[in-house]
Amino acid sequence: MSKTRITLNENDIPKQWYNIAADIEGEFAAPLHPGTKEPIKPEDLEPLFPMELILQEVSQDRYIEIPNEVLSIYKTFRPSPLIRASRLEKELKTPAKIFYKYEGVSPTGSHKPNTAIPQVYYNKKEGVEKITTETGAGQWGSAIAFSGAMFGVKTKVYMVKISYDQKPYRKALIESYGSEIVASPSRQTNSGKIMLEKDPDSPGSLGLAISEAVEEAVNNKGTKYSLGSVLNHVLLHQTIIGQEAIRQMEIAEEYPDIIIGCVGGGSNFAGLAFPYIIDKINGKDIDFLAVEPASCPTLTKGNYEYDFGDTAKLAPSILMYTLGHEFIPPAIHAGGLRYHGSAPQLAYLVKNGIVRAEAYPQTEVFNSAVTFLRAEGIIPAPESSHAIHAVIKQAIQAKEEAKEKTILFNLSGHGYFDMSAYSSYLNGELVNPNNG
Amino acid sequence: MSKTRITLNENDIPKQWYNIAADIEGEFAAPLHPGTKEPIKPEDLEPLFPMELILQEVSQDRYIEIPNEVLSIYKTFRPSPLIRASRLEKELKTPAKIFYKYEGVSPTGSHKPNTAIPQVYYNKKEGVEKITTETGAGQWGSAIAFSGAMFGVKTKVYMVKISYDQKPYRKALIESYGSEIVASPSRQTNSGKIMLEKDPDSPGSLGLAISEAVEEAVNNKGTKYSLGSVLNHVLLHQTIIGQEAIRQMEIAEEYPDIIIGCVGGGSNFAGLAFPYIIDKINGKDIDFLAVEPASCPTLTKGNYEYDFGDTAKLAPSILMYTLGHEFIPPAIHAGGLRYHGSAPQLAYLVKNGIVRAEAYPQTEVFNSAVTFLRAEGIIPAPESSHAIHAVIKQAIQAKEEAKEKTILFNLSGHGYFDMSAYSSYLNGELVNPNNG
Repeated sequence: MSKTRITLNENDIPKQWYNIAADIEGEFAAPLHPGTKEPIKPEDLEPLFPMELILQEVSQDRYIEIPNEVLSIYKTFRPSPLIRASRLEKELKTPAKIFYKYEGVSPTGSHKPNTAIPQVYYNKKEGVEKITTETGAGQWGSAIAFSGAMFGVKTKVYMVKISYDQKPYRKALIESYGSEIVASPSRQTNSGKIMLEKDPDSPGSLGLAISEAVEEAVNNKGTKYSLGSVLNHVLLHQTIIGQEAIRQMEIAEEYPDIIIGCVGGGSNFAGLAFPYIIDKINGKDIDFLAVEPASCPTLTKGNYEYDFGDTAKLAPSILMYTLGHEFIPPAIHAGGLRYHGSAPQLAYLVKNGIVRAEAYPQTEVFNSAVTFLRAEGIIPAPESSHAIHAVIKQAIQAKEEAKEKTILFNLSGHGYFDMSAYSSYLNGELVNPNNG
Repeated sequence: MSKTRITLNENDIPKQWYNIAADIEGEFAAPLHPGTKEPIKPEDLEPLFPMELILQEVSQDRYIEIPNEVLSIYKTFRPSPLIRASRLEKELKTPAKIFYKYEGVSPTGSHKPNTAIPQVYYNKKEGVEKITTETGAGQWGSAIAFSGAMFGVKTKVYMVKISYDQKPYRKALIESYGSEIVASPSRQTNSGKIMLEKDPDSPGSLGLAISEAVEEAVNNKGTKYSLGSVLNHVLLHQTIIGQEAIRQMEIAEEYPDIIIGCVGGGSNFAGLAFPYIIDKINGKDIDFLAVEPASCPTLTKGNYEYDFGDTAKLAPSILMYTLGHEFIPPAIHAGGLRYHGSAPQLAYLVKNGIVRAEAYPQTEVFNSAVTFLRAEGIIPAPESSHAIHAVIKQAIQAKEEAKEKTILFNLSGHGYFDMSAYSSYLNGELVNPNNG
């Protein structure tokens, strides 16, 4: 009998992060300073990030050592399991083999702690007393609150208002870790106040919450800012997922024909996919599929151009696929995918045809989520369910073509905090906003 | 560096359940028929359970083979990890070593699937089309709904009304698995109707929800009933936890001085403790501590006598510690511990001084839960937090006595569905009902 669940033990946790910049070296345009529009210098980022993270952001080293203090916390929940979705395969009657890396086993239920832990660690090491950040669905805010508790660093989370209202339990979790949390737009920053004057009922957006968190960090000594996706160092930290997966797929004696992940900023997709990209660059035939919501179609319908990472133009301007920094996505349930931009490294790979993207409406996504749940037993986050929907489409296509195919995807988080969305779906109340 | 997290791989899953009846053989009084008050015969239980489970209920065999169909689902999440709580130890500055078995990694977030899976399997095998059950906090209902989905058996959950109202997300999870769910008391059974006539605003109780589920099973051919705790076969299935723990503690090169678990009916405690009990019977010095809520103090303040397992006296009468089958516990947040009775095997061990019990008020319990969360990062269920509170007391005592001590406890579930309780606690709104 083939294995259902491939686990590694704590000594198998990779000791280094993989830096894709080493393998697509020199191909990137530099971020621009939001004020001067000149290429940004490391010291320009100092008000925002500790120096170690800035160096990682611009590093060309292929591997970067993971500090022991970070490994010791990774070890409480990593390596995450690689699971063969044999029950789903049977349900779909597909010849495809489906594997998923399950990141929902982390303490906060997603892949986000993989980068929150080192980010808080480097801040602590450089004497930072407080970290501000934003959160959409709450996965990132929970991860930073958790990591703050682990290292004894104060944290403050600006949570997009619509999620703050829809997900009181995420708020309670963040507070239970001892973190401060406010709804964004708030009256605690200028960016927030300006938005509230324009629209007192603004549901908020990730772009705006970033502006608020950045503003507080820049204006307070001892306070820095932390971002949960998009940036190179964030994607770097997430590569622990793909490195583990490579080892686990070897144990399963399988190699993926297609690698699938959902994309908000791009970090969970990159985490799984980047360690495999070099094989494609070296000529291997792998299909990389990034999946996004139809109502926030950054990679499929955005422009590849310089744009600001946040609404108030306080963050650097980067070359990426973007829907425009003032774009406020419809209030879909996959709050973690409601971002106007994309990671520049991922955008580059899409632009160059190494990664392709598809976009799906949320009703189809929830339909696939329930199929997965009833077959595999695990309740997936709405974000991750975008990947699931693509997987199911691929598996059905493989059946129609009677083609063996090995699919690997990232189940980036569980959906325990998203049950009201499932409830709406089951009651037939879920709709697809305007553009699908 | 000592290991943080001891994992086993899927081949290490025990292939047999351990049946403690073999080691305390002949010591039990038989359950009595609810109508005739005569000792119950296996065939009397046939309207309720499939024959295989009835035979397990009365079996004296030390080991019972786990069917492959059950193992193949266990393998999607087991073996569960054994984690060294080194960060908690450091926080408490205790010389004690603290280990916990973490059952929150199951698809529904608690130890309950360990028995739900085989129960649904045996029902399916004997042609049962529909399974009814009750649930308090929702852990058991979720486990049965999940297992029903795995084997394609219809399930229906009577959820204690107060939890049904307080925990809409548990309801949504149960429905997402495809299960039917109703609030108890309901108008769908006589037991429910009688209660609603007496008290239209009844918050319900586990005892009453059991009556409703039993009544529906007994009155409908092809429908049987499933219980999530108390009975011998339920405790039997849970021993997979303790068997894994023995192996993992051996790898850690540690042996527990004290084993701690929370008790509602007794199954998670028994699951961890029973495989170790034989060592105590053979003369080893181990302290077994069962922890219950002060407001439902079955083992510490109940009487050891025959009583009905349910409110409407439809279930057999068993010799156990009980607060009386009409006892309706205050609406504490640890809904899974609100049961008037206790597993007869556990009650016997308490009566004979092999296991001891303590009871704590919920405010103290939540205080310890938050201490644990901020040190270990995992949000514990309010039920499991009773065990945590006892662990912290033990660890502090070890510090005061400057005594090395190895503590093993069962973290039986996560608290993602209990965030409103944490919220109340953090806002200072949590109180201890009447008797503490």
